Amino acid sequence: MTLAPVLDRIDRDLDSALERLMALLRIPSISTDPAYDGEVARAADWLVEDLRSMGFDAQAHSTAGHPMVVGTAGTGAPHLLFYGHYDVQPVDPLSLWHRDPFDPAVEETDTGRVIRGRGAADDKGQLMTFVEACRAWIAVHGALPCKVTMFFEGEEESGSPSLVPWMKENPDAIRADLALICDTGLFDSETPAITTMLRGLLGEELTITGPRIDLHSGMYGGPARNPIRVLSRVLAALHDDQGRVTVPGFYDGVPEIPAEIRAQWDGLGFDADAFLGAVGLSQPAGEADRTALEMIWSRPTCEINGISGGYTGEGFKTVLPSKASAKISFRLVGTQDPHAIRKSFRRMVEEMLPPDCTASWHDHGASPASVMTTDDPAFETARRALSAEWPNLAAFIGSGGSIPVAGYIRSILGMESMLIGFGRDDDAIHSPNEKYHLSSFHRGARSWVRILDALAKG
Amino acid sequence: MTLAPVLDRIDRDLDSALERLMALLRIPSISTDPAYDGEVARAADWLVEDLRSMGFDAQAHSTAGHPMVVGTAGTGAPHLLFYGHYDVQPVDPLSLWHRDPFDPAVEETDTGRVIRGRGAADDKGQLMTFVEACRAWIAVHGALPCKVTMFFEGEEESGSPSLVPWMKENPDAIRADLALICDTGLFDSETPAITTMLRGLLGEELTITGPRIDLHSGMYGGPARNPIRVLSRVLAALHDDQGRVTVPGFYDGVPEIPAEIRAQWDGLGFDADAFLGAVGLSQPAGEADRTALEMIWSRPTCEINGISGGYTGEGFKTVLPSKASAKISFRLVGTQDPHAIRKSFRRMVEEMLPPDCTASWHDHGASPASVMTTDDPAFETARRALSAEWPNLAAFIGSGGSIPVAGYIRSILGMESMLIGFGRDDDAIHSPNEKYHLSSFHRGARSWVRILDALAKG
Repeated sequence: MTLAPVLDRIDRDLDSALERLMALLRIPSISTDPAYDGEVARAADWLVEDLRSMGFDAQAHSTAGHPMVVGTAGTGAPHLLFYGHYDVQPVDPLSLWHRDPFDPAVEETDTGRVIRGRGAADDKGQLMTFVEACRAWIAVHGALPCKVTMFFEGEEESGSPSLVPWMKENPDAIRADLALICDTGLFDSETPAITTMLRGLLGEELTITGPRIDLHSGMYGGPARNPIRVLSRVLAALHDDQGRVTVPGFYDGVPEIPAEIRAQWDGLGFDADAFLGAVGLSQPAGEADRTALEMIWSRPTCEINGISGGYTGEGFKTVLPSKASAKISFRLVGTQDPHAIRKSFRRMVEEMLPPDCTASWHDHGASPASVMTTDDPAFETARRALSAEWPNLAAFIGSGGSIPVAGYIRSILGMESMLIGFGRDDDAIHSPNEKYHLSSFHRGARSWVRILDALAKG
Repeated sequence: MTLAPVLDRIDRDLDSALERLMALLRIPSISTDPAYDGEVARAADWLVEDLRSMGFDAQAHSTAGHPMVVGTAGTGAPHLLFYGHYDVQPVDPLSLWHRDPFDPAVEETDTGRVIRGRGAADDKGQLMTFVEACRAWIAVHGALPCKVTMFFEGEEESGSPSLVPWMKENPDAIRADLALICDTGLFDSETPAITTMLRGLLGEELTITGPRIDLHSGMYGGPARNPIRVLSRVLAALHDDQGRVTVPGFYDGVPEIPAEIRAQWDGLGFDADAFLGAVGLSQPAGEADRTALEMIWSRPTCEINGISGGYTGEGFKTVLPSKASAKISFRLVGTQDPHAIRKSFRRMVEEMLPPDCTASWHDHGASPASVMTTDDPAFETARRALSAEWPNLAAFIGSGGSIPVAGYIRSILGMESMLIGFGRDDDAIHSPNEKYHLSSFHRGARSWVRILDALAKG
C-alpha cells in the first residue's frame, strides 16, 4: 500500500506546508516591473533551496530575463515534467486590497478558509501543491515513484520572453515522457478538471501621435488633431454591433465545437448568471449568438487591457496631448494564426488614421491556441485518480486563459501536456485580494499524490 | 513729460526685474495638486512682500482654497483693477523638459532670448509686466498716476473654485472703474492685441464602471463587459464625420461672426499652415467647413483632455478593468449655456451605456463665453498706447482660451475688462519647456507704462 500513508502525511503536514507557501508568497516576484528583478531572483533561489532540501538536484539557470528553476529527482518510468511559474502579476490598484498583497494570511470566508495574497492562486499556491506531493512521497517512501523534473518559470506574467530560447537551447534538461502543468482551475468547487483546450494570446501596444508636443486646448482646441479622440475611434471600431471582432480575416481558423463536446459542456450545468453575477454583471457582453461558456472556452476575443493619454492626475488640465496609447490583446482559438492577425490588425488601424497621425507599435508576444490529444491513455488514468479525491468525477474542459508553455512543450520537446489545477473562478487572479482556497491547496496536493501513484503504476 | 523717464527706467532696470521674476518662477505653485499647497501659499506671500516693498497696502486673503493677493496704491481716476494669477500648471511629463521646470533660466533661441520655466508665460511673467510698470512709475514719480488695485489669484489653473465666493463676499476690496487682465497673447511677435472675445469652458470627468472588480481576460474575456471599450464608443460618438459635436442642442447660442469682424480677421493674414506646422500638424482637424482661425476664436469644441483605465505601466497585464475614465472639456462661444450642455451631454452618455455599466461624474467647473463691449473709449485709448510701443498697430482679436474672471468681473462687479497680454503662440503654456520671450517681458512692461499714462490722462 503506497498511497494511503502519503495522503496521510499530506494531512498531518498541512500546517508546515502552509508556512512554506507563505514564505514564498512574501517574496514580491513581479516579473513585468524591472524594479522587482531582485525579488524575482530571490523567489527562484528560494525554490532551488526548497527542492534541494528534498533531495532534488536543482539549480536556477540564468537567462536574458528571469531565471528558470530546474530540479530532478527519482528514477523509473514514466519521466514526468512538472511546470509552474513563480512570478506574479503587479498589484495595482493597491488601494483596493484589504491587506498588504505580500503579507499573506489565512482568512475565514463564507466559502471556507482562504489563503489571501498576490500569487496565492496564480501560481505559487498551485505550484506548491505538486512540490508538497513530492515532499510527502519522499518523506514516506524515501524516493519518488518515478523520475520527476521540476521546471519553474519566472516570466509567465510578462510574456515569457526567455522561455522559447531557453527551451530550444536546453531541451535535454527538461525532456520527459509527459508534462504536468498546474496553472488552471477546477470546474467548480466539487468538480476537478483536466483542461484540454486553451486559448492563445496576442498582445499589442498601440501609441497614436498627433501634434509634436502637448498643446493647450484654449489655443489649439478646434484645429489640432487630438490623439485620444483618434484612439477612441479606432478602439470603438474593433467590434461590430453584434460583438464580433472586425479585424479582417480574424475568424479564419475558428472552428465550431463538435456536437459531442458541446453536449458534454451542456451537461456540466454551467451557471452563467452566477458566474457573471459574482462580479456584478448580468448579461454576457460578447458575440450575440454565443453562450457565455462558448465565449470563454471556444470563441476568440479582442480586449482593451489598458488605455492612457493626456492628464490623468487629480483635478483638471486642459491639455491636448501629443500621444495616446492602448494595450490590446486577442484571445485565440483553433488554428487562428497570431502573426497574420497582428499584421491585419496593424494594417486596419493604420488605414483608419486621419492626416497628421502616426501609429507606433510594441509587440507583447503571440501564441496560438492549444488543443490537447486526449486519446493518450495517461489522460484517462489521471482523470480516474483525480475523481477519487473529489466529490464529483473529473471533467475534460476548455479554458479561456492562455498557457503558451503547453504549445512550446509540444513544438519544441514533442511532448503532450496535461493541465490540472485547483483554482476557482472567484480567486481574483490578476486582481486585488487574490486568494486560494485552503481546500484547493490541501486537496490539490493530495490529488497530485494520487496522480503520481496512478501514472507510476501505468 | 511723465512717460519717457519711466520707459527709460524700465530699460535700465531690466536685469533686476528679471531676477525678481526668476525668484517667483522658482516657487512651484501648482494649484491643482494638494502636495504643492504650501508652495502656492509661498508664492502669494512673495507677491505680498513685493507689493509692500513698492508701497502698496497689500495682503493675502485666505479662502477655502488658495489665497487671493490684493494690494492698493495711488490715488486719482480712473481706478484700475489689475488681475493676474500666480499659480501654474503641473509639469508632467517631466521627462520631456530640457531643464528643471522650477529652475528657470534665460536661453538663446532662433527667435531671440527666452525665459524658460513653468509659469514663465502663464502667468507669472505676464503678471510681473504690470508689477514692473508700476514699480518703475513709482520709482520715477514717487506715486502712480492713478489708483491701482492688484488682484492676484492662486487657483486659475485648477478651476478657480474660490474666486466667485470670494468676489461676492469682498466686492469692495476690488471694485474699480476698469479691469486690466494680463493672461492673453500678442497676435504675432510684432502685433499687439486686445482680446475682445473669449471662449467659455465646461469641464467634466466621466467614469464608467462595468464589473465590480478587475477581472482576468483569460477567465472572463468574451462575456465580461469592458468599460474601456464602452468609454471608447462613447467618446468616438461625440463628433460626427464632419467634425461637429453631436451633443443634442450643443450649437444653440453659437452665433455667426458679423461680416465686418470676419473681414478684420481676414486682414490679419493669419497663417494657419505656419500655426499648425509649428506643432507638427498640417491640416485643421475641426469642423470641415470652418477656417482654423474661426475654429479657435469663434467656434465651440469638445475635447478629450485625459483618459485612463486598466493597466498602463511597463509591460503587459491581461486585465479587464472594473473602471475607465476620461476628462472632457467643451470650449463655448456666444451665448451657449454651459449648464444646459452639461445636462444634455450627461444624458447622451447615459443613454449610450450598455447593460451592466454605470456612469459617474465629476463636475470640473463651467463658465460661459465672454464678449467685451469695445465701444467704451478706454479700449481705443489703450489700443493707441499699445500701438506706440510695437512695430504694428494693435488689433482687436478673439481668443480660443477661457478666462472666466472677465465674466465674473462683469457679473459681480459690473465692470468691463480689457484683456492685454504679450504671450506668443509657441510659448508652450501647459506643456513641457514653457517659455516667455524676453522681449514680451520687456516690451510688456513698457506697454503697461504707456497704457497707465494714457488711461490716467483720460
